[in-house]
Amino acid sequence: MTEFKPITPQQQPKFAGIKTFMRLPHSQTIQGIDFVVAGVPWDGATSYRTGQRLGPDAIRKISVTLRPYNLALDVDIFEHCSGIDYGDLPVIAGYIEDTYAKIEAELCPLVEAGIIPVLMGGDHSITLPELRAVAKTHGPVALIHFDSHTDTNDQYFGKPYYHGSPFRRAVEEDILLAENSIQIGMRGSVYSKAAYADSTALGFKVITMSALREVGPRKLMEIVRKRVGPHKVFVTFDIDVVDPAFAPGTGTPEVGGFTSAEAVDLVRGLRGLNFVGFDVVEVLPDKDPAEITALLAANIVYEFLSLIALNKKSKKNV
Amino acid sequence: MTEFKPITPQQQPKFAGIKTFMRLPHSQTIQGIDFVVAGVPWDGATSYRTGQRLGPDAIRKISVTLRPYNLALDVDIFEHCSGIDYGDLPVIAGYIEDTYAKIEAELCPLVEAGIIPVLMGGDHSITLPELRAVAKTHGPVALIHFDSHTDTNDQYFGKPYYHGSPFRRAVEEDILLAENSIQIGMRGSVYSKAAYADSTALGFKVITMSALREVGPRKLMEIVRKRVGPHKVFVTFDIDVVDPAFAPGTGTPEVGGFTSAEAVDLVRGLRGLNFVGFDVVEVLPDKDPAEITALLAANIVYEFLSLIALNKKSKKNV
Amino acid sequence: MTEFKPITPQQQPKFAGIKTFMRLPHSQTIQGIDFVVAGVPWDGATSYRTGQRLGPDAIRKISVTLRPYNLALDVDIFEHCSGIDYGDLPVIAGYIEDTYAKIEAELCPLVEAGIIPVLMGGDHSITLPELRAVAKTHGPVALIHFDSHTDTNDQYFGKPYYHGSPFRRAVEEDILLAENSIQIGMRGSVYSKAAYADSTALGFKVITMSALREVGPRKLMEIVRKRVGPHKVFVTFDIDVVDPAFAPGTGTPEVGGFTSAEAVDLVRGLRGLNFVGFDVVEVLPDKDPAEITALLAANIVYEFLSLIALNKKSKKNV
Amino acid sequence: MTEFKPITPQQQPKFAGIKTFMRLPHSQTIQGIDFVVAGVPWDGATSYRTGQRLGPDAIRKISVTLRPYNLALDVDIFEHCSGIDYGDLPVIAGYIEDTYAKIEAELCPLVEAGIIPVLMGGDHSITLPELRAVAKTHGPVALIHFDSHTDTNDQYFGKPYYHGSPFRRAVEEDILLAENSIQIGMRGSVYSKAAYADSTALGFKVITMSALREVGPRKLMEIVRKRVGPHKVFVTFDIDVVDPAFAPGTGTPEVGGFTSAEAVDLVRGLRGLNFVGFDVVEVLPDKDPAEITALLAANIVYEFLSLIALNKKSKKNV
Amino acid sequence: MTEFKPITPQQQPKFAGIKTFMRLPHSQTIQGIDFVVAGVPWDGATSYRTGQRLGPDAIRKISVTLRPYNLALDVDIFEHCSGIDYGDLPVIAGYIEDTYAKIEAELCPLVEAGIIPVLMGGDHSITLPELRAVAKTHGPVALIHFDSHTDTNDQYFGKPYYHGSPFRRAVEEDILLAENSIQIGMRGSVYSKAAYADSTALGFKVITMSALREVGPRKLMEIVRKRVGPHKVFVTFDIDVVDPAFAPGTGTPEVGGFTSAEAVDLVRGLRGLNFVGFDVVEVLPDKDPAEITALLAANIVYEFLSLIALNKKSKKNV
Amino acid sequence: MTEFKPITPQQQPKFAGIKTFMRLPHSQTIQGIDFVVAGVPWDGATSYRTGQRLGPDAIRKISVTLRPYNLALDVDIFEHCSGIDYGDLPVIAGYIEDTYAKIEAELCPLVEAGIIPVLMGGDHSITLPELRAVAKTHGPVALIHFDSHTDTNDQYFGKPYYHGSPFRRAVEEDILLAENSIQIGMRGSVYSKAAYADSTALGFKVITMSALREVGPRKLMEIVRKRVGPHKVFVTFDIDVVDPAFAPGTGTPEVGGFTSAEAVDLVRGLRGLNFVGFDVVEVLPDKDPAEITALLAANIVYEFLSLIALNKKSKKNV
Repeated sequence: MTEFKPITPQQQPKFAGIKTFMRLPHSQTIQGIDFVVAGVPWDGATSYRTGQRLGPDAIRKISVTLRPYNLALDVDIFEHCSGIDYGDLPVIAGYIEDTYAKIEAELCPLVEAGIIPVLMGGDHSITLPELRAVAKTHGPVALIHFDSHTDTNDQYFGKPYYHGSPFRRAVEEDILLAENSIQIGMRGSVYSKAAYADSTALGFKVITMSALREVGPRKLMEIVRKRVGPHKVFVTFDIDVVDPAFAPGTGTPEVGGFTSAEAVDLVRGLRGLNFVGFDVVEVLPDKDPAEITALLAANIVYEFLSLIALNKKSKKNV
Repeated sequence: MTEFKPITPQQQPKFAGIKTFMRLPHSQTIQGIDFVVAGVPWDGATSYRTGQRLGPDAIRKISVTLRPYNLALDVDIFEHCSGIDYGDLPVIAGYIEDTYAKIEAELCPLVEAGIIPVLMGGDHSITLPELRAVAKTHGPVALIHFDSHTDTNDQYFGKPYYHGSPFRRAVEEDILLAENSIQIGMRGSVYSKAAYADSTALGFKVITMSALREVGPRKLMEIVRKRVGPHKVFVTFDIDVVDPAFAPGTGTPEVGGFTSAEAVDLVRGLRGLNFVGFDVVEVLPDKDPAEITALLAANIVYEFLSLIALNKKSKKNV
Repeated sequence: MTEFKPITPQQQPKFAGIKTFMRLPHSQTIQGIDFVVAGVPWDGATSYRTGQRLGPDAIRKISVTLRPYNLALDVDIFEHCSGIDYGDLPVIAGYIEDTYAKIEAELCPLVEAGIIPVLMGGDHSITLPELRAVAKTHGPVALIHFDSHTDTNDQYFGKPYYHGSPFRRAVEEDILLAENSIQIGMRGSVYSKAAYADSTALGFKVITMSALREVGPRKLMEIVRKRVGPHKVFVTFDIDVVDPAFAPGTGTPEVGGFTSAEAVDLVRGLRGLNFVGFDVVEVLPDKDPAEITALLAANIVYEFLSLIALNKKSKKNV
Repeated sequence: MTEFKPITPQQQPKFAGIKTFMRLPHSQTIQGIDFVVAGVPWDGATSYRTGQRLGPDAIRKISVTLRPYNLALDVDIFEHCSGIDYGDLPVIAGYIEDTYAKIEAELCPLVEAGIIPVLMGGDHSITLPELRAVAKTHGPVALIHFDSHTDTNDQYFGKPYYHGSPFRRAVEEDILLAENSIQIGMRGSVYSKAAYADSTALGFKVITMSALREVGPRKLMEIVRKRVGPHKVFVTFDIDVVDPAFAPGTGTPEVGGFTSAEAVDLVRGLRGLNFVGFDVVEVLPDKDPAEITALLAANIVYEFLSLIALNKKSKKNV
Repeated sequence: MTEFKPITPQQQPKFAGIKTFMRLPHSQTIQGIDFVVAGVPWDGATSYRTGQRLGPDAIRKISVTLRPYNLALDVDIFEHCSGIDYGDLPVIAGYIEDTYAKIEAELCPLVEAGIIPVLMGGDHSITLPELRAVAKTHGPVALIHFDSHTDTNDQYFGKPYYHGSPFRRAVEEDILLAENSIQIGMRGSVYSKAAYADSTALGFKVITMSALREVGPRKLMEIVRKRVGPHKVFVTFDIDVVDPAFAPGTGTPEVGGFTSAEAVDLVRGLRGLNFVGFDVVEVLPDKDPAEITALLAANIVYEFLSLIALNKKSKKNV
Repeated sequence: MTEFKPITPQQQPKFAGIKTFMRLPHSQTIQGIDFVVAGVPWDGATSYRTGQRLGPDAIRKISVTLRPYNLALDVDIFEHCSGIDYGDLPVIAGYIEDTYAKIEAELCPLVEAGIIPVLMGGDHSITLPELRAVAKTHGPVALIHFDSHTDTNDQYFGKPYYHGSPFRRAVEEDILLAENSIQIGMRGSVYSKAAYADSTALGFKVITMSALREVGPRKLMEIVRKRVGPHKVFVTFDIDVVDPAFAPGTGTPEVGGFTSAEAVDLVRGLRGLNFVGFDVVEVLPDKDPAEITALLAANIVYEFLSLIALNKKSKKNV
């Protein structure tokens, strides 16, 4: 297990060396691995800006500043887990449906082997094939979805797949437990008064940013836990749920979002759920001149890994 | 009326097409129009940075992400209003007084026709000719002024007009009802203990950021409503009232300002007042690498349009 | 005809107003029009960077600095031609084949009406549907192709269409006269000694940058003219044929390219050929912080328009 | 004294002239001076990014927007103090120990003359020689340390000095009163559960960001005052204690930090302590495209100067 | 004289210290001074971009890398000359005519004292008051004008002064010897076939870039020398004469210009003429992310200083 | 051998995956390896800007666009060679002499094993320990040095080592054959007429840029070959030898340098010499917003690898 943990800054300065996530070994082994971090360099299905395919690169570059102990969650990730940077999943520019097939095919053996995938997008359309892969092993799962948009639109110029529709498709494909799923952080201008009716009609619970401001983070977490229950859960985190001041590097920013501290706290608030997969999406390096969006995304991934480790730690202690 | 509303993303993707504000028709018609959005590309009168003349461009570019329904205010702008992107008002670089005359002359027929002008600066000196045009039809009006500076200085190297003096001039010209006007958000280092005495001597009420932090936004809105009363009101929003983290792209930033959420909420809080004009000023694209300042300014304009629509909606319902 | 020409800086300062190409009228009329300038905001088929969908925007923004008289070619574009900014052609993100169909469908009526399309990409994959539209009216045409790559690869992860294959496909589809076509400016590292054999096997003549440096621009133009002969010709200009110092904003830059002066001169050297269409592609604003790539691309479009005008002028003089 | 105060914007526009801190006279006199502002352009000892040597430059450039009256502290700096921009202290790139000697040697006569040094880094390793110079005149002093890291590591690749160890070294050298010192704002991922044990073992009190969020700023200030007592105190402010949204331009940012308003308030909260020196460090202009980090750092220096002036004002009033 | 020369890098590292041009003393003395370098921070009269007011700042910042010996001209500037950084000349934003009066008034005593002014703009409109000041002492002078535009337009929205008209005005005011003056480097699209007829009608000789490419630099210098003859000469260098690849940071770039080597060589080619003043204008830092435009402008100023020194050296040797 | 060659774009898209140089395997094996590419992330010894420690990262990121066949040199690198990305060599920030020892110690076993090191800086001070390592196995070697500066200064604030002195030190240490070494490309302002006398006194031949422009590249290569003779040779390429337009991202740029095409041609011109090591230095990503400097540096490394492969190919053919 010792080989599947980060290089320390006592071994090599942080600024030096090949950049993998958190300086984990780059490998595609699945032996003795608890989680893989992998990129999904796809930005072919966005409705405004592109460039998210280089998101994984940017997250890896800045992730070298992360350290293994999470004080808030009281866990050393690599005391309990071994993990790797798996590299990037395969995609075919211009062909979203073929890309979906490739992503799913690459993830399936990992999920089947009991490994938890932690994915870095890429635009939000990639969560659909991720969920397909997860569902193949685990059956339909609950979804915790942080975002400023619900991404439950129907069609885009007559086509079913783009970054605005993955969660509608997932419900239709019966790979989500909509009644155990929740969408958090919605805000911004919308197309009609019934903006979130689509989501609720599909079965999702929607907590808008203004609702959230009223209930507060503590109560929100109770709502989430009650909603998800004991079900297996996939967490998807669209970086645009965070305010553009804290996450400028994204494709469809909306003013009035979370701070970085709130974002991290919300993820920490999920501790103990029955996680089967995670992603953070929509990081766009070209609009991130100071790399603060990538840094935040790296921290979100770090909190995901901490949640995984915490679950393993808890099991041991039982 | 159908032609004077935005192109939808079902008609054309957001990233495509000529960039007008919110993808409204570009026109200079005044028939059947409730509001015009127009740029005022003037940056000749600033005391620090320049480049604000390209502010309208930047706001238009990012405004394509806006959608017509404002949930917080419960109004679909284009259900109640028709509006256009009027283009930019005329200016003459290097000649502020002639520029003032041109801006006023261009606005007068619009205001006279009952159209509400919603203007995008440009530096803050442009608000003076805007107020002149408004006053020509409406007489002196109340002012709600969001800013980190009062802009009531007297002279600048012996000259009366620059972006630090418009509101002193406006009072002197009897086009403002100072006793019904309010300045909100002042902060930062000043020249003397009597920093805001100039403004209060002119008749303005000044709510500094530290005062505001104490009274809170709800109480603030009561103060504003009481102050303005039933009078016709012009709203001027200097983007530097927002913190530089949320609005880096401006000429004279001051630390310690509003968040984007607070900024939007304050504008929404003005609902129901008797509006005759609006502007958002001091957007400086060259210091806005991720376009977040322009995005916020576009949202402020959007809230202005929503306020106009809400007033129309209310009238119908009466 | 008078309405289909640019606004002058005596009418409105260059920095003011809605940004269309060269401040031409934005219209989709086809009556009395000689050329249309249109954007093709597609970047879904690139092998490295994305973001080219915002290329047309960037070119339009800086094109306001262009003036109507081309001294080198001795022609006033709008004395002989009327033209419009048609806006952007339709695309569907994620679906290259459907996008191809939409581009072709939109262009066909224009080409049929005798209008010369001048297109702004977008990645280079868009030239294939453009050629299809052109061929539908004109039959197979000669191609003059400026680029640092031949773009005659075969497949990309098993798929026929991406920005590296349009000219192979075009030959296979019989919409190009390969034996009258020429590719100019190839350079950079390649996959094998037979790097350009694919192109020559398809029938193209390839003039690498090093060959060009030997023959010189004057002789090159003779070769081009001889090659093209009297045939109808489409000119495609990948901005990466220019050196990255002069055109940093592109997706797959190659060191050792043309200067901006050389690029403009080469286009001017084509005067008098029988043009039926043009494009300039692969402008990527996110890597163009000083807008010099967009400026050069705007100038290339300008030279295209001058070539069109020169042909009309010549016809009149006959 | 009149010569050692800033140029006013009535004398020269803010954008004009040679850039010294706050447009103070550039001088190396020590006659009749209360404080010097000086740069320490050293970035040779960082564990991640470099470029902090140009921090003083960037702070000076934007500091021209500051004005002499601090309303929150009710003090006009130059009514009570005279001060200069001393320029930059000497350093030798590549040789940290010699650089330490030079910084100390340059500062000693200033401190001895009763002048309060206010220093602009540079990386955090520079605080050690500053403390040495201060201690030579004043003996060991209390430290108030704002930072997201404790900087009390031991060695870096076998070497004692780098930007992660200055405060451990200072305690070992008996130039700090650790039992009267406090570290505020620590956060982020760490190496082990005992992350802050090093600091507390050295005698420091550590207030992490999460602890601070619980006690609140008012209570924090009580803790600080009790801790420091009547002792002479040096304040060191690492700009990375602020959230990356408000201070992107730094070498080792950590998400979840202070806002700019909180940062300024905390410094103001120190009023009345027995200050003998200050610094603000780790400003990195290359990651500060909109200059907001430099602006905040300039404001922190401004608050430092205000604290000095307030102490002088208080003494007079006694 | 020893005090009026640059700090050496042996005295202080280049990256350290207050930034004056070439690290010259900042002073407004005129005793014993051969030249002054001064900024003219005015950008109020431009037809496209603004921000040139911060040009002098940017040139000073990068000029610290210059060294005193010019090998190509075989002269050590400070062996023969003493000079200072005079700071910036006064301007009034928004009021071009008052600004003109202030610039002229500030320069007159310098010119009268026999000092050669070397000015850093600012937009090109500033050359008119500079010429007025020069002419007051020297009478009408010859002009050597490097630019991509002739700047001899007449009016701009009915006004006589802006950055497109200074040389028409100068001829009309009889402060230029048009018949001994020359304009070099014109290129780009124009408004009509008679584009340069305005200039030649005023008496200027115009050497377009394409003419220059034909005659070559050596022959050009003969033409210049013949044209200027023994007359006193002012050299004005608009940085946009250089290609945007080499000078992206400017307001109205034109493709197809000089390289940096050509620009420097042309200035060197002027050696021995009877210089009475110089400027370099239109440097716009906001479009100069890597500071290469400012670096080139600093080198142009450096060549100007070398020409001054060479003249002094020659006189001594006579 | 098959494993030590790049991933192809048919295996994985260029934009995907962990970034090693040219997508070579990341390994520290020395079995069966002809060359290693390694970074030297040291920027502690610069006289102006820092940030070069992230140069290797930037070069790796963009190097993914390189392809294995070099047409100009007619060689497929990986047909003849196997090579790896070795990662980065060890350094200790703040301690140049210890860093030198570490670099040398890490390189020695590689050189001893007959592997050719190809190094990516980092500032130019790193070439000294590289030469020490090379000399330990090979004895003193000839040097071909491309640069705009000679880097043969003596001391920097009393210290022997910094990026301006490595080649003086190397001669003093008898690890260079100065009489077989050559420095190419020197230009820019200097400290005295005897600017290059230091270098020639040490035994180097200096070809300034102006000398080079006269002799031309072909003759230059003859001079180089004659100078180097049959001796083992180390090639060091400071990216600042290239003009800032083509290589803006560097620490001490000088106007008037090579184009990218010239730079590549000069390296190609060295074919057949007896190479024992290479480096490219002074790439500074923070001043390289469009990544063109990194792209050029990657191409220079690529040409180095081609030269190695060509030598191996030639040997086989003998």
